[in-house]
Amino acid sequence: MHIGFIGLGNMGAPMARNLLRAGYRLTVFDLAAAAVASLVNTGATAAPSIIDIAQSDVELIITMLPAASHVREVYLGEQGLLSGVAPGVRLIDSSTIDPMTARDVAAAALQQGNPMLDAPVSGGTGGAEAGTLTFMVGGDNTDYDGALSVLQSMGKNVVHCGPAGNGQAAKVANNMLLAISMIGVAEAMNLGVSLGMDPKVLAGVINTSSGRCWSSDTYNPYPGVIEGAPASRNYTGGFGTDLMLKDLGLATEAAKQQKQPIILGALAQQLYQMFSSQGHGAMDFSAIIKLYSGEDQ
Amino acid sequence: MHIGFIGLGNMGAPMARNLLRAGYRLTVFDLAAAAVASLVNTGATAAPSIIDIAQSDVELIITMLPAASHVREVYLGEQGLLSGVAPGVRLIDSSTIDPMTARDVAAAALQQGNPMLDAPVSGGTGGAEAGTLTFMVGGDNTDYDGALSVLQSMGKNVVHCGPAGNGQAAKVANNMLLAISMIGVAEAMNLGVSLGMDPKVLAGVINTSSGRCWSSDTYNPYPGVIEGAPASRNYTGGFGTDLMLKDLGLATEAAKQQKQPIILGALAQQLYQMFSSQGHGAMDFSAIIKLYSGEDQ
Amino acid sequence: MHIGFIGLGNMGAPMARNLLRAGYRLTVFDLAAAAVASLVNTGATAAPSIIDIAQSDVELIITMLPAASHVREVYLGEQGLLSGVAPGVRLIDSSTIDPMTARDVAAAALQQGNPMLDAPVSGGTGGAEAGTLTFMVGGDNTDYDGALSVLQSMGKNVVHCGPAGNGQAAKVANNMLLAISMIGVAEAMNLGVSLGMDPKVLAGVINTSSGRCWSSDTYNPYPGVIEGAPASRNYTGGFGTDLMLKDLGLATEAAKQQKQPIILGALAQQLYQMFSSQGHGAMDFSAIIKLYSGEDQ
Amino acid sequence: MHIGFIGLGNMGAPMARNLLRAGYRLTVFDLAAAAVASLVNTGATAAPSIIDIAQSDVELIITMLPAASHVREVYLGEQGLLSGVAPGVRLIDSSTIDPMTARDVAAAALQQGNPMLDAPVSGGTGGAEAGTLTFMVGGDNTDYDGALSVLQSMGKNVVHCGPAGNGQAAKVANNMLLAISMIGVAEAMNLGVSLGMDPKVLAGVINTSSGRCWSSDTYNPYPGVIEGAPASRNYTGGFGTDLMLKDLGLATEAAKQQKQPIILGALAQQLYQMFSSQGHGAMDFSAIIKLYSGEDQ
Repeated sequence: MHIGFIGLGNMGAPMARNLLRAGYRLTVFDLAAAAVASLVNTGATAAPSIIDIAQSDVELIITMLPAASHVREVYLGEQGLLSGVAPGVRLIDSSTIDPMTARDVAAAALQQGNPMLDAPVSGGTGGAEAGTLTFMVGGDNTDYDGALSVLQSMGKNVVHCGPAGNGQAAKVANNMLLAISMIGVAEAMNLGVSLGMDPKVLAGVINTSSGRCWSSDTYNPYPGVIEGAPASRNYTGGFGTDLMLKDLGLATEAAKQQKQPIILGALAQQLYQMFSSQGHGAMDFSAIIKLYSGEDQ
Repeated sequence: MHIGFIGLGNMGAPMARNLLRAGYRLTVFDLAAAAVASLVNTGATAAPSIIDIAQSDVELIITMLPAASHVREVYLGEQGLLSGVAPGVRLIDSSTIDPMTARDVAAAALQQGNPMLDAPVSGGTGGAEAGTLTFMVGGDNTDYDGALSVLQSMGKNVVHCGPAGNGQAAKVANNMLLAISMIGVAEAMNLGVSLGMDPKVLAGVINTSSGRCWSSDTYNPYPGVIEGAPASRNYTGGFGTDLMLKDLGLATEAAKQQKQPIILGALAQQLYQMFSSQGHGAMDFSAIIKLYSGEDQ
Repeated sequence: MHIGFIGLGNMGAPMARNLLRAGYRLTVFDLAAAAVASLVNTGATAAPSIIDIAQSDVELIITMLPAASHVREVYLGEQGLLSGVAPGVRLIDSSTIDPMTARDVAAAALQQGNPMLDAPVSGGTGGAEAGTLTFMVGGDNTDYDGALSVLQSMGKNVVHCGPAGNGQAAKVANNMLLAISMIGVAEAMNLGVSLGMDPKVLAGVINTSSGRCWSSDTYNPYPGVIEGAPASRNYTGGFGTDLMLKDLGLATEAAKQQKQPIILGALAQQLYQMFSSQGHGAMDFSAIIKLYSGEDQ
Repeated sequence: MHIGFIGLGNMGAPMARNLLRAGYRLTVFDLAAAAVASLVNTGATAAPSIIDIAQSDVELIITMLPAASHVREVYLGEQGLLSGVAPGVRLIDSSTIDPMTARDVAAAALQQGNPMLDAPVSGGTGGAEAGTLTFMVGGDNTDYDGALSVLQSMGKNVVHCGPAGNGQAAKVANNMLLAISMIGVAEAMNLGVSLGMDPKVLAGVINTSSGRCWSSDTYNPYPGVIEGAPASRNYTGGFGTDLMLKDLGLATEAAKQQKQPIILGALAQQLYQMFSSQGHGAMDFSAIIKLYSGEDQ
């Protein structure tokens, strides 16, 4: 199958490479010439513009873009995909954006005969490299089935979340909960340790009790508790604070539109913002525990 | 072994019955005559007062009391245990109280030759009946080893958390995290559903992603997601909102003494207080999701 | 002077009537025919469209619109004001919108020779009727001076807040503080009364102490404390909860763009959202005290 | 009149000096010999112990102590005031403590014939020196009237808040509101300035609008806005962060006992705790704005 791929950033580039590895023919586009060159070296063909990809003989186009404004531009812009793509070509947007924009773009695509899926990922750049991403997919059953094998060459966990936009809805809900849990674990660990607990023993109790969660048993923010977690390597790598902030911005914006109160979610956003404002936006998001540490920030 | 047991409430009574079932000889005391009578019917001996238990030939005394003030009274009061108990008799307090009081009482006990453990439980009245409680134990290694088989006749999970008071520290930290996670799941479920997700599908995504936690995969607050959870039986049974409030009060008080900020923990306390003030203190704590539902409270 | 006025809603209509009263010649437009008819009855001329106002001989055009999207449409739309207005005609937007949009539109206007002010108001429909509004004005000094007498015929307090967009910035900051203060007063009044204070005595103490604020001394949310305040007439009239929610949405959005943490502001937004979701969006915003009352919501 | 005065700390010493200045005969006690010596130099008589003051011929005893535990000890301890004071001697406690303790002690005093007032102050050490404190007084009408002239020699504003304990209730409610307002002003000032406002212009708008409050118009936390405010002298002097933390601890504890939710109040406590934990507990409480500044803390 011939696939078009637009957006070769930290996530998009390794995802595209995994498609090449799986044997797909790939035509790629990115504004950054170096990113394109690197993919071409691995076997992809470069397209001079978005519209060129739309008008080539691709059967499927995947996009991986920074934000909703880019998605609107790439799909709905004057020289965008929908202005030139042939009916029947399938579309997958793996960007993390708000569900409403995802639905708007999918509806516009469908109207001119292009079935579209929203398929945001979790798993970070590590997962993108290793091909172990999780895809949360919104769209029609048939379209989902048709895209499954392609997605599986980039990820190991593909979940169908319902109709268009639901991939984004699932991601925004999950990541808001993740943000809250991580701060909750940070507070619980610091409280327990201040009361005299050994951090590993405390994590052990939590991980076999009702406080058990991914933020504690897999990604504990307390240094030294989990070997290999960002907390044990000075909060480098992992999922950056500013990326979490972006997702929390999507969550609170979606909640506002749905007139849904999200008290801890909104507070989490502000705490990550406070931490980022202190100059730590590039640190892994589990470093939020430092906000509570009393040491010089 | 002859064991004394003081405090035959909703938790203490079934715990005492499990000790009888395991073959221990039991002398009990409670201010409520009916509670005592019920245990005597199952084979226990009634003591007319606390001091009578202290002065009997028990080798071990277990207490299960509502709050720190009762623990101080029962152990340190003029007619309390320490005023009459023979050196060498072992003491276990299974009440949930603050770590500082636990340490004070344990130090006073030790000084007159009575090794003491704090051993608060989780698992609720259901776990107490079934003998499947989790014990979080603080105290000396040898004392812990010596008490293990007795505790195992009342629970299936016994964790040594470190020296005296650490059982309480672990419980307070775990339960604060639980309170936060539960509200986080409530917000995430409501947000996702308001965005068009099916609640079971959303929980499925969360439970295999980074939002995974006990509050979602075992005790999900959204009705119908988990069969058998309180949310699926109108929030009856389970762990009452006012009990969670008590634990959050211990957490914020401990944090104040340790000069440790706990932002989400303090907010969780106030949200449960708001919910309780609306008349829902007896509902399972997962009913906090109703605070977000917009329906008539 | 001949003035164009676009947007004859609850605020715009009485503002326009005050201009007529002050002797200005007025040409008006609104999508609602009845609103236009009512103004025509008082002496205004109706324009069939926005572009007709732009192309008339008005020297000044005032707009009063619900949200930023309407402002963009009315000014920058294909048939919008800037598509037809003659250079030199002055523009004043009194809508409450985000500072960034205000700056974008003002820059576009200036580029084609139309000086523009942002001049959002506070004072509610009562102030609009009575001509006692406060105008917070952003824009050039000369433009401000030139508009002063017109604004003074609609309000009694006109404040120059700096260059374009600063009127909006001032309003968003002030109203966020107002939202926080009102909840603060609600909590303090309820706490004091629960501790045995008479509400009027408590308000008296606060109003002569360091807790003194407009939300306590002028608009106290506790019923019966201030005669004439919405709290003393069942929270009718005044400034609706959903209008406060809109302003808090602008505040948190602006803070997000400026990467500025606003913890209490974000929490206030969610509390008003919770209250609105319970069906109270039309009540005066001081009714937020009911969220704390424990009575049936 | 002969007055006994116990507690000669930063507040008590200047209060006692003002009593001497007003011509009262004074017998004083403090654990710190230097504090006593300093008062004796100004004309007071030293008592060797609390019980000596109780058993002297004083007509009135005033106490100014750090916390509720000291108040209990000084009044109810084995060698405390109530163990020796003659019936009819009047008692005033000016310490800031929880209303419940104030009521307990007042009831115990009354039972043995000693009318007692709780009369906590605001105004800080500056107000204590200058004799311009505000007294918030709880107690009986007659007792209040009888104490008025004595209190007026130490303060310029004396408010009767109702029966015993209400002075403490008023103070706790007012100071919680103050803590919230101060953070609200910090957030609003930072938001407005980040949006391009001049801080003085912004404060000017707020101070004539609905955001008006003591924290903005008298004690603005933004440097340079108000000459003479702690913000304009590096947050030295004024009301220390740790003193505000103590009052917020009393507020949340009282709210817990009254089962009253106080969401912003609890959050304010945690934010001040976070700030204090970063090493700033001695700074004036308006320095909380630094938590939002993004600069190195």
